[in-house]
Amino acid sequence: MRRSHLFLLSGAALVLGTGAHAQSADSARIIDEGMNRSQVMLTASQLMDGIGSRLTNSRNLDRAEEWALAKLRSYGLANVRREPFEFGRGWNMTSSKARMVEPRVIEMTAIPVAWTPGTAGTLRAPIVVAPISKVEHLAAWRGKLSGKIVLLTMPGVSDEPKEAAFKRLSDKDIGDEDNYNLPTYDPETLDRRLKRFQFAKQVDAFLKAEGALAWVRKSYRDGKLLHGEGYSYLPNHSPALPGFELAAEDYRRLARLAKTGPAPVIELMSDAQFDDSDHLANNIIAEIPGTDPRAGYVMAGAHFDSWIAGDGAADNGAGSAVVIEAARILRTLGVRPKRTIRFALWEGEEQGLLGSRAYIEQHLVNRATPPGMDGITAYFSWLNRFPLSKKPGYDQLKAYFNMDNGSGKFRGIYAEGNAAAVPLLSEWMAPFNSLGAQAVVAGKTGGTDHVFMQAVGLQGYQFIQDPLDYESRVHHSSIDTLDHLRADDMRQAAVVMAGMLLAAANSDREIPRPPLPTQPLPTDPFAYVDPDE
Amino acid sequence: MRRSHLFLLSGAALVLGTGAHAQSADSARIIDEGMNRSQVMLTASQLMDGIGSRLTNSRNLDRAEEWALAKLRSYGLANVRREPFEFGRGWNMTSSKARMVEPRVIEMTAIPVAWTPGTAGTLRAPIVVAPISKVEHLAAWRGKLSGKIVLLTMPGVSDEPKEAAFKRLSDKDIGDEDNYNLPTYDPETLDRRLKRFQFAKQVDAFLKAEGALAWVRKSYRDGKLLHGEGYSYLPNHSPALPGFELAAEDYRRLARLAKTGPAPVIELMSDAQFDDSDHLANNIIAEIPGTDPRAGYVMAGAHFDSWIAGDGAADNGAGSAVVIEAARILRTLGVRPKRTIRFALWEGEEQGLLGSRAYIEQHLVNRATPPGMDGITAYFSWLNRFPLSKKPGYDQLKAYFNMDNGSGKFRGIYAEGNAAAVPLLSEWMAPFNSLGAQAVVAGKTGGTDHVFMQAVGLQGYQFIQDPLDYESRVHHSSIDTLDHLRADDMRQAAVVMAGMLLAAANSDREIPRPPLPTQPLPTDPFAYVDPDE
Repeated sequence: MRRSHLFLLSGAALVLGTGAHAQSADSARIIDEGMNRSQVMLTASQLMDGIGSRLTNSRNLDRAEEWALAKLRSYGLANVRREPFEFGRGWNMTSSKARMVEPRVIEMTAIPVAWTPGTAGTLRAPIVVAPISKVEHLAAWRGKLSGKIVLLTMPGVSDEPKEAAFKRLSDKDIGDEDNYNLPTYDPETLDRRLKRFQFAKQVDAFLKAEGALAWVRKSYRDGKLLHGEGYSYLPNHSPALPGFELAAEDYRRLARLAKTGPAPVIELMSDAQFDDSDHLANNIIAEIPGTDPRAGYVMAGAHFDSWIAGDGAADNGAGSAVVIEAARILRTLGVRPKRTIRFALWEGEEQGLLGSRAYIEQHLVNRATPPGMDGITAYFSWLNRFPLSKKPGYDQLKAYFNMDNGSGKFRGIYAEGNAAAVPLLSEWMAPFNSLGAQAVVAGKTGGTDHVFMQAVGLQGYQFIQDPLDYESRVHHSSIDTLDHLRADDMRQAAVVMAGMLLAAANSDREIPRPPLPTQPLPTDPFAYVDPDE
Repeated sequence: MRRSHLFLLSGAALVLGTGAHAQSADSARIIDEGMNRSQVMLTASQLMDGIGSRLTNSRNLDRAEEWALAKLRSYGLANVRREPFEFGRGWNMTSSKARMVEPRVIEMTAIPVAWTPGTAGTLRAPIVVAPISKVEHLAAWRGKLSGKIVLLTMPGVSDEPKEAAFKRLSDKDIGDEDNYNLPTYDPETLDRRLKRFQFAKQVDAFLKAEGALAWVRKSYRDGKLLHGEGYSYLPNHSPALPGFELAAEDYRRLARLAKTGPAPVIELMSDAQFDDSDHLANNIIAEIPGTDPRAGYVMAGAHFDSWIAGDGAADNGAGSAVVIEAARILRTLGVRPKRTIRFALWEGEEQGLLGSRAYIEQHLVNRATPPGMDGITAYFSWLNRFPLSKKPGYDQLKAYFNMDNGSGKFRGIYAEGNAAAVPLLSEWMAPFNSLGAQAVVAGKTGGTDHVFMQAVGLQGYQFIQDPLDYESRVHHSSIDTLDHLRADDMRQAAVVMAGMLLAAANSDREIPRPPLPTQPLPTDPFAYVDPDE
């Protein structure tokens, strides 16, 4: 963290000369526009409150795309467009219901699991608690599930949260991120993932063959929070049975009643419907053209898709709104950067970073995903598929900034293991140190759209953000709504995002690029595979 | 906390002689029965999972009464009976629904407010955000509410919980309770309460006169938790309009949309119905008769009624199940105590400790509540109404133990300001010190059924309990369900409750009784009344 201060003094003021003065003037205008005339929360409200959840290839995401295209065009951005990629089935759900009707009538809190079929009216059946988490568990339930609604999760007990739900990073928290993470690659990860994918299909087929009517899983958070993630979006992999996620409190009540008395009878309704009118998803792209066509481009991105339980606010309407606001700020200031600044809203992120990977396959490298492979499986296999070669666009991309860690204030940026990137990232961030964005740390992060850029040697970076209540209760949940965003944090993030983009677009230097990978990541020569995993 | 250990040594072992030996043997049997053959969680499950919420004078509470009477009789308790008292209207609600339909369709999380009328089908109307919290606010809304659903609460922003949701007490926490609380009485409390009661009626009348269709308030907890408390249970005080509590996330979304665009249109449905077949509530009483009719009785109690959003588990099915389990343990052991042990399950606690106050008025003192006064108002006025005189039963009651602080383990007991009670309470608790129940503290607690006993000089005590997640998220909320109880804590509480009761019933001494109050509590001679409160 001290390092960035040093760069503020030595780098910006002493070394950079005129470049630094230009950046300072730009930064002041960016701060003024982004702090005093911010639109970021109004933009966010239009998206989250007005449109809501945005499951990839859902009607709601179509609406959001229209809105985003219009919004970006209204700011005068150039080349505003959709870039389609192959995804999978559309799935839409607007109404669902779950009630216990015996031994008493009570409304339960539940959500259909994404990409499971609707119920065609209301299902009414006794439940059976049949915890099934591996193939070996299936045999015990043969002949016992006909006409039943099957509860697949072990009931467990309620959680005892010993940490505060809302958190900001301390200096020590941030300092702990400043470490080079040793590269690790577990070649079994892919096998395990494939097994899990196969197992889900096997359970569905088993339940169908046994005559079960639907399955229910327990929410992984207490407090009546719901999520509803599901991954069966590929055309030939749709499950036969409706699946529901039930609030943990409601699930455990059913389990206790079933253990101590006659099986409760419940009703489930989901109006979910598949939509096969197309199987495409789209990335949204917009640009501020650079003045030097040979200088390449820099890019900011955030995934635009969400899960279904909330409004997709912290994950990742926040990132989307910040990218859009950064674009607005820069357009409003009328900047004419040397390099093109490209803005990207990705889709299919929640299914395995599909949109950003499609972009990379379309524009940056030759390494395609085998057709029909599900996203999460591809996530693990794609990283280590060789040979890998550059497309012509590869060298054009000079820096990519991703936002997808909730709505918390930017406290710095991860150099993502590229130690050579630290000086320039620090320099670009220096004008925003007093806004709280200070640290440039070596640490590497995963799980979102900079990952595949990193994996092919490109300069993709994520910001360090205050966690707020993202992990504790908001991420993917039914309370991922706008009011769990912090307006002040969002303004700050948009300012820093705009500032970093403009600095990168005008910089007379480029972030050194790591070598293009030529072989899989190292593996542990002593590793055995645990047969139970 | 050390004090109780001292009393264990000096009191129990050295002074008490044979009495202490008898208590030790009893304690060992109580611990064995309560720990190794506990029924408390099965009892709790029958009540919470099988019957659920128990609003006073609801059908569900009727069912729970039948269950409790049968359960207590099945244990062989004597004089198992209802003791009715005047309460107010019955109110039952089994189904409700809230949706936003414009600008988009989304299901919202809401609950009708208790004792507000149903909607007679589905109401559909635009909302208006009209924050009204004092009489002065009404004028601004005249002529603007016709045909609207009125949102009465300021939207505010989401909370930022900086403390862990689940907590156990440290020794320091407990030590801090060992203080004599200076008596305070604010004579304006009653006026303020009366004003608030009048104001709620005034708002309802205003909304009705203005042609509004319903009112909505925001939940006071984030995270989609609901509560639904309402207090208009008196026969001639029912509101004209349906009232709903909306999840904070859903409420704020409506408020933002209304501020930045056309008013959202929502639908509300509640099947709530009043039931005037009787206006009585009941306390449930059961006994283990004492061998010495002149020795009086000791009593354990917990309120049996609950609010409507959850299953009334921590508040106060836990206390009810512990009282029932303590009765089972003592009956199973076949104890023949010197004094009668009475068990009480109170109703109407949530509306102002109505059941325990009725018991006191019926059995213990002459100080009646003026008819037609609502419970909370009576709560404040009753304490300071004089003259007060004893009924013949007054001297019979030797000790009362109340449980109503959630389901957490007993860590000790409050002497409730009666310093003279400390030695005997410590002695009775000594055999259970190793179970974690150790501290006898001077501190005074309020808000539940020992309060009026205390207020007339009787020996009513509450236990110190680990808070768990009671205050943070469970109290009165939609997740007040059985799985937020801790089974080990419940077993321990039942054992300590049974042990304290038996020790008190057999003790050759009695807790010194404070003088019968003869005048109101002291007031501050320098106080002015803030006209804005």
